[in-house]
Amino acid sequence: MSARILSGKEIAKKIREELKDEIADLKSQGITPGLATILVGEDPASQVYVGAKTKTCHDLGIFSDQHTLPADTSEGKLLSLIDELNNNPKIDGILTQLPLPKQINETKVLDAISPEKDVDGFHPINVGRFFTVKDFEEMVEKKLFLPCTPHGMIEIIKRSDIQMNGKEAVVLGRSNIVGKPIAMLLLANNATVTICHSRTKDLASVCKRADILIAAIGKPKFVTADMVKEGACVIDVGVNRTEQGLVGDVDFEKVVDIAGSITPVPGGVGPMTITMLMVNVVKSAKKRI
Amino acid sequence: MSARILSGKEIAKKIREELKDEIADLKSQGITPGLATILVGEDPASQVYVGAKTKTCHDLGIFSDQHTLPADTSEGKLLSLIDELNNNPKIDGILTQLPLPKQINETKVLDAISPEKDVDGFHPINVGRFFTVKDFEEMVEKKLFLPCTPHGMIEIIKRSDIQMNGKEAVVLGRSNIVGKPIAMLLLANNATVTICHSRTKDLASVCKRADILIAAIGKPKFVTADMVKEGACVIDVGVNRTEQGLVGDVDFEKVVDIAGSITPVPGGVGPMTITMLMVNVVKSAKKRI
Repeated sequence: MSARILSGKEIAKKIREELKDEIADLKSQGITPGLATILVGEDPASQVYVGAKTKTCHDLGIFSDQHTLPADTSEGKLLSLIDELNNNPKIDGILTQLPLPKQINETKVLDAISPEKDVDGFHPINVGRFFTVKDFEEMVEKKLFLPCTPHGMIEIIKRSDIQMNGKEAVVLGRSNIVGKPIAMLLLANNATVTICHSRTKDLASVCKRADILIAAIGKPKFVTADMVKEGACVIDVGVNRTEQGLVGDVDFEKVVDIAGSITPVPGGVGPMTITMLMVNVVKSAKKRI
Repeated sequence: MSARILSGKEIAKKIREELKDEIADLKSQGITPGLATILVGEDPASQVYVGAKTKTCHDLGIFSDQHTLPADTSEGKLLSLIDELNNNPKIDGILTQLPLPKQINETKVLDAISPEKDVDGFHPINVGRFFTVKDFEEMVEKKLFLPCTPHGMIEIIKRSDIQMNGKEAVVLGRSNIVGKPIAMLLLANNATVTICHSRTKDLASVCKRADILIAAIGKPKFVTADMVKEGACVIDVGVNRTEQGLVGDVDFEKVVDIAGSITPVPGGVGPMTITMLMVNVVKSAKKRI
């Protein structure tokens, strides 16, 4: 039997339609949500990411304020741009594309973005609040900026009617951007959560416990069929560029026959990230009402 | 065979001896570490806790600045006291005893304490930095204020030469004060970490996977012998006041025959908490050098 394919692409499309209504509503009240993006240098991947964010803004009717700075920009200059954007009432969200050139202290820059406009959810204050909320309802109620990729993963799970309450979730990978926050989100949704990683002994049998398996380890086709429980929900966050093109962290062709549901790569988690960023921008703009 | 008893009391004593040397060294440089405690109202348990902290300060030679405010103190008044302490160069740490009376917003108060003097590690900025550090070495290197009880638990494990690297750790309980931060500390020490809780299905078999089992669920004798793997290290954070006196979350009399090592209650994790608070005060005072 072949698993149900969880199309992040379709879910993202649906969320964007919902956002369009919310944005129309905001505009009728004189508010146009605004996102400032800052790109320092000419890293091709970063250019692609920022370009995609700008395009999505345009598609949705969000004001996009794109700043492109030369690779030798000083830290002081970047900080003063951020300060200006922090104080610009037309801007609801500020996003600095990472990585930054070596002369710039990344922590200092992320800390300088006003927590009120930190739509990436990377500011330590926002991370701290995220870590300490009681449950998912409180996260929503407190209007926290949830980190985009993990939030997108949870939306895929929720909108596909996959139960988390009391289920065993296993997160493979412990990064700050995906592994740790998705573990917290699964916990906030009452899953029993295991975080495993490169040091874990007998990784296959740990992964095989999972009703929900999150692959976020950054190794192409790392999760093989023997690591997956029959009927499990498998969420693949991997975006590995290989000679065979874009490949996930899961050996999709084999795992699809065992899993109950699975996200493809591309078209799975990928399209959700930018969408959830836009969700944060709109959430921020609503605070202007 | 009976488990090795991990005496937090003895380990705390040793750490306090180490602290005395550090404090003597600071004093020779003209620095006396200072801790301000704030107690609002007359809750008997809170009075005991604050009293114990003050006593430990005296024992160690730390300047203790104790503020006792009436139960009807306004939020504004408390906030201005905190502001004053934030700016007092003799004070390295500020601790507001929780819970606070109903007229006072707890979050607002905790946020008002300068992150530089937040020796409880409860400020969202400090929580955020704690959540995002790469590993335990980085936590030490960045001189983070680690939350006291979880830090004490890790010290018991480390100083008892119990290995965490690659081991299965199971944390029973997901509070902000113990469950979630100890999970992060175990992860930072390269354990494979599972967080389970009241919604977990088949809790006994999840707990039985643990090489290191953390009981932090607040239910007397909840962890029974059938939930413990032979030879496991069992850390009991429970402090339940029952008719039989102070009882942990672990059924000690039975589990002691199965576990490889175990903390008693009292005399286990309890004495570590205040000691680790003093570690944070001294850490903070060192920043004056």
